[in-house]
Amino acid sequence: MTQRLIREVFASAFDNVYLRKLDDASVVGLRKGRYAMTTDSFVVDPIFFPGGDIGKLAVCGTVNDLASCAAEPRYLSASFVIEEGLPFDVLESVVSSMAQEARQQRVLIITGDTKVVPRGKADKLFINTTGIGLVHKTLEASMIRPGDKILINGPVAQHGVSVLAARQEFEGRESLKSDCKSLWPIVKLLLQEHVDVRFMRDPTRGGVSAAANEIAQSSGFSLVLAEQDIPVTASCKSFCEILGLEPLDIANEGKMLFFMGEKDAYRALRILKSVPSCRRASVIGDVLPERTGKVYLRTAAGGSRILGMPVAEALPRIC
Amino acid sequence: MTQRLIREVFASAFDNVYLRKLDDASVVGLRKGRYAMTTDSFVVDPIFFPGGDIGKLAVCGTVNDLASCAAEPRYLSASFVIEEGLPFDVLESVVSSMAQEARQQRVLIITGDTKVVPRGKADKLFINTTGIGLVHKTLEASMIRPGDKILINGPVAQHGVSVLAARQEFEGRESLKSDCKSLWPIVKLLLQEHVDVRFMRDPTRGGVSAAANEIAQSSGFSLVLAEQDIPVTASCKSFCEILGLEPLDIANEGKMLFFMGEKDAYRALRILKSVPSCRRASVIGDVLPERTGKVYLRTAAGGSRILGMPVAEALPRIC
Repeated sequence: MTQRLIREVFASAFDNVYLRKLDDASVVGLRKGRYAMTTDSFVVDPIFFPGGDIGKLAVCGTVNDLASCAAEPRYLSASFVIEEGLPFDVLESVVSSMAQEARQQRVLIITGDTKVVPRGKADKLFINTTGIGLVHKTLEASMIRPGDKILINGPVAQHGVSVLAARQEFEGRESLKSDCKSLWPIVKLLLQEHVDVRFMRDPTRGGVSAAANEIAQSSGFSLVLAEQDIPVTASCKSFCEILGLEPLDIANEGKMLFFMGEKDAYRALRILKSVPSCRRASVIGDVLPERTGKVYLRTAAGGSRILGMPVAEALPRIC
Repeated sequence: MTQRLIREVFASAFDNVYLRKLDDASVVGLRKGRYAMTTDSFVVDPIFFPGGDIGKLAVCGTVNDLASCAAEPRYLSASFVIEEGLPFDVLESVVSSMAQEARQQRVLIITGDTKVVPRGKADKLFINTTGIGLVHKTLEASMIRPGDKILINGPVAQHGVSVLAARQEFEGRESLKSDCKSLWPIVKLLLQEHVDVRFMRDPTRGGVSAAANEIAQSSGFSLVLAEQDIPVTASCKSFCEILGLEPLDIANEGKMLFFMGEKDAYRALRILKSVPSCRRASVIGDVLPERTGKVYLRTAAGGSRILGMPVAEALPRIC
């Protein structure tokens, strides 16, 4: 059964010269260099949501963690924990969307694993992907300088909101599409255009609030974000208002926060806006000279407040 | 909470210069070469068993898949799916045994992930480890030649039997210890002694039966195993007899099947026997010239039968 599953579902969908051997490990030749390695287990509930599914998410999530290190995604592993009784066509559909995203990103899934656990011992399907990528530029939070600008490539909160909406029968939930997307293409574009990016971070769990606070802490500088410059779609905004959610706390899966000097920032903004998926890219904040590692939010009303780390996980199982 | 968990449990136990940054990915310098990559999700039930636990297993399992490619384990990722309510000290104990095994094997856990799912949506703890190792020698099943000998480094079936016994209150179950062990040290020893190993495979799920059948199929040659030469401990043997289990079908986590020419095989046997954990190493079979990809078992009674691929997974959640 496991053998059939591996051959018919995984090996045929992900087909490549490495995986074809069906060995316990795959061997690849690497040239000398700096490589990024990252891992993520995906337990999103539900496994299908508007704009994506757990399979697409499992590829994009790991590709984006590599991209945030300026690493070109090369090889992925994929490991599945399957609850007994999961319909075969559900698994096939998830695997096919993984394969499609991997193909589009030219990343090879070279090794894998499958475990089936009895009914009730897992929730349908968990996927781990681990990725290796070749680093094109060394980025560290310590490279951030006062006066640097903070950019984002589009509206926030779409992923978390779409998953949350998919759990319930919210009216108009189809308009709340996840932003789940691989970000290496836009990172590569900025690097090719010699934009001097100093640091990047994809604001996933805990949203922009968590990412900004982590960066403030590791760079040592305080950050200020301008609420009115942070793009949020109208449908996302009203959904958050109804449920009393702060869009900045909500997970994204196709967004990147970029830190760079002012001149580069406005050039990067023009480049990003030329990409259809990034038309709403925006400069959303500044790095302050103050060395307290805090994040301030300049509200639309003209006030200013501290934007804290989200205390509780507002939305569990969002990725 | 997640942040505290990461800092206090994982980062302190696995501490190294890469992980310390707590970035979403870690960057390592690699020299030009051939690298093996392998992934495994561990869902063993129970998570503690005589001779090991899910943490030790998660390191050994991945190290051994690398070792079977003659790859020196270098870097691991570790990803945890935790059922809400798992006692903190249980997690700590598992993480500490992972850290200990990794330290002993000089492999660094450089990146990780944690997901907490609600009670009843996972079974206590699942761990994924993905590993990268530098390949010291290229091994392929196609290098196997008729007349080659098959070696094993000790008694079979100990891991599966110990886990099964741990699920019940079997008398004397403490004598049924898992063989869970990292095999890179013995593989390295054989390579250093210039033993011309042609192929290796660790007989985990499906035991020696599954591994032998897979190798027979991929090499194209038939294999013959001599039942009386295959080491099994007395306690393991009687446990299997009582439950009607075939020891050759049962998972190992510290065994390797080695394929090599006769001269090398007997030299390797002497080398292995000098290692305390391998005193019961044995030459257990031969590669036949027949190109049918079958596995025969020469029984102790003098007969011969086909040793098939185990049909059903006799023991689910063994790793």
